[in-house]
Amino acid sequence: MTENWVNETLYAEWGQRFLVKRELAQVKSAFQDIRIFESHLHGRVMLLDGVVQITEADEFVYQEMLAHVPLLAHGAAKRVLIIGAGDGGVLRRVLQHRTVEKAVMVEIDGEVIRLAKEHLPRIGGDAWTDPRATVIVGDGIDHVRQAEAGSYDVIIVDSTDPIGVGEVLFTDEFYANCFRILTDRGLVVNQCGVPFMQAEELRETSLRRAKFFPDVFAYLAAVPTYVGGFMTLGWAAKDAGCRKVEVSEIRRRADVAGVLETTRYWTPEIHVGAFNLPPYIGMHLPRG
Amino acid sequence: MTENWVNETLYAEWGQRFLVKRELAQVKSAFQDIRIFESHLHGRVMLLDGVVQITEADEFVYQEMLAHVPLLAHGAAKRVLIIGAGDGGVLRRVLQHRTVEKAVMVEIDGEVIRLAKEHLPRIGGDAWTDPRATVIVGDGIDHVRQAEAGSYDVIIVDSTDPIGVGEVLFTDEFYANCFRILTDRGLVVNQCGVPFMQAEELRETSLRRAKFFPDVFAYLAAVPTYVGGFMTLGWAAKDAGCRKVEVSEIRRRADVAGVLETTRYWTPEIHVGAFNLPPYIGMHLPRG
Repeated sequence: MTENWVNETLYAEWGQRFLVKRELAQVKSAFQDIRIFESHLHGRVMLLDGVVQITEADEFVYQEMLAHVPLLAHGAAKRVLIIGAGDGGVLRRVLQHRTVEKAVMVEIDGEVIRLAKEHLPRIGGDAWTDPRATVIVGDGIDHVRQAEAGSYDVIIVDSTDPIGVGEVLFTDEFYANCFRILTDRGLVVNQCGVPFMQAEELRETSLRRAKFFPDVFAYLAAVPTYVGGFMTLGWAAKDAGCRKVEVSEIRRRADVAGVLETTRYWTPEIHVGAFNLPPYIGMHLPRG
Repeated sequence: MTENWVNETLYAEWGQRFLVKRELAQVKSAFQDIRIFESHLHGRVMLLDGVVQITEADEFVYQEMLAHVPLLAHGAAKRVLIIGAGDGGVLRRVLQHRTVEKAVMVEIDGEVIRLAKEHLPRIGGDAWTDPRATVIVGDGIDHVRQAEAGSYDVIIVDSTDPIGVGEVLFTDEFYANCFRILTDRGLVVNQCGVPFMQAEELRETSLRRAKFFPDVFAYLAAVPTYVGGFMTLGWAAKDAGCRKVEVSEIRRRADVAGVLETTRYWTPEIHVGAFNLPPYIGMHLPRG
């Protein structure tokens, strides 16, 4: 029998490949090609348009850093908006914080949600039915356009890269609306690619965020299947103090929120250290 | 024309692949298969037995962390032993420290040195002809067996994984001799694989180091082409204080050594932060 290998198509001339144990779904939605398969080493894997979005084995790295860092940096986040993240993983981590009162998730592609619930049920877990959660199948750009000023404390954007479906989530209009709908000490984080391979993505989107937010930066996560070294998570905050909280205070907040010692990647030390960027990455950020 | 892809064979069911622009060398030495090719995105790439050892584009991450961290953690390293690292990259970074008086490099495979000088000349640079350098083609295990007690302040082991050629560099005898030939505050670091994929390597070699050294730990580097998230560098020191030096003191030492602001990955903050391990990695270390 011929081996069935999936080659990630993110970069034309380099990338990762997985030996498929079993195909689970290949669906062409109104927005993208969705593929889910069972791998040998990473559990189940989901690709959108040929790019790895999540694997069961390493999703904890990305989700923990995308959810816990902004919430604990803010310190009093009650209302959280999640854009994208149709697999439910960010929603689950956000709702781990007992201090969160409301989490609104806006995913454009209902097929991603449907297939994730069917084939990746552990990623979202019981977040889907949490009474604090509102799951909307709709366009994130519309949601931030229509939301009232000061509606959210934290916005988490878990989009694809700034090409294709995710493109509008990197525009001036989107960031202007994010600023408007955030509370006074509000902040937004978003996935910003792997800067060793995609430095322009970090550079250009950071410049755009800097048009609207006084504190623009990035922080690091080493996600095993986002290959190419550190990925960066973009950071745009109204209050620069949020990314300068000390380890002891982050630990205290995590304890209050109920997430301390529930994590496999995030720790208070890693939280604080994630803002120390190697020069090869920091050079792409606007100078403050 | 058919595309020429190189699939890394480190793991049977997952890995990275490179589109080859031009083959430069394919040599079967007495010890291993050596292959060097020109890639599209990573400059020249060297594989040993099918496993990526170095690429021109990201070698700085690995070399900086493998050389600068132990030297600056020690703080007064004058005599340094490097085992493996036939490409010359660690030697070059060690000799950047003007405080180093003597660097001895022992590489078992002369063909790696010869081919690296020919095809990867920028990796070693002028380290090969530095009067402080002694380059020995020989067996690292023999060298540490024969070296006098207290000969070295720091030992850097840049081996392949603990299978094949590199196996003897992970044995009891090797570590016992490392302890013996190190000075009173001496320490040894070694590459320990990518723990997301190779946790047993970190676990077993750490236990072995702990038989001989009072302070056994690991630190992190996110190397783009050692795919799978953080790699760990093993740490075994006579003095636990060496890994608890503050950022300001590391910065001062780097300035004295002449390496401050020469780096693209290493910074004093990253140095100190690299010892903060995610729980999924820290769980594999012996409890202190």
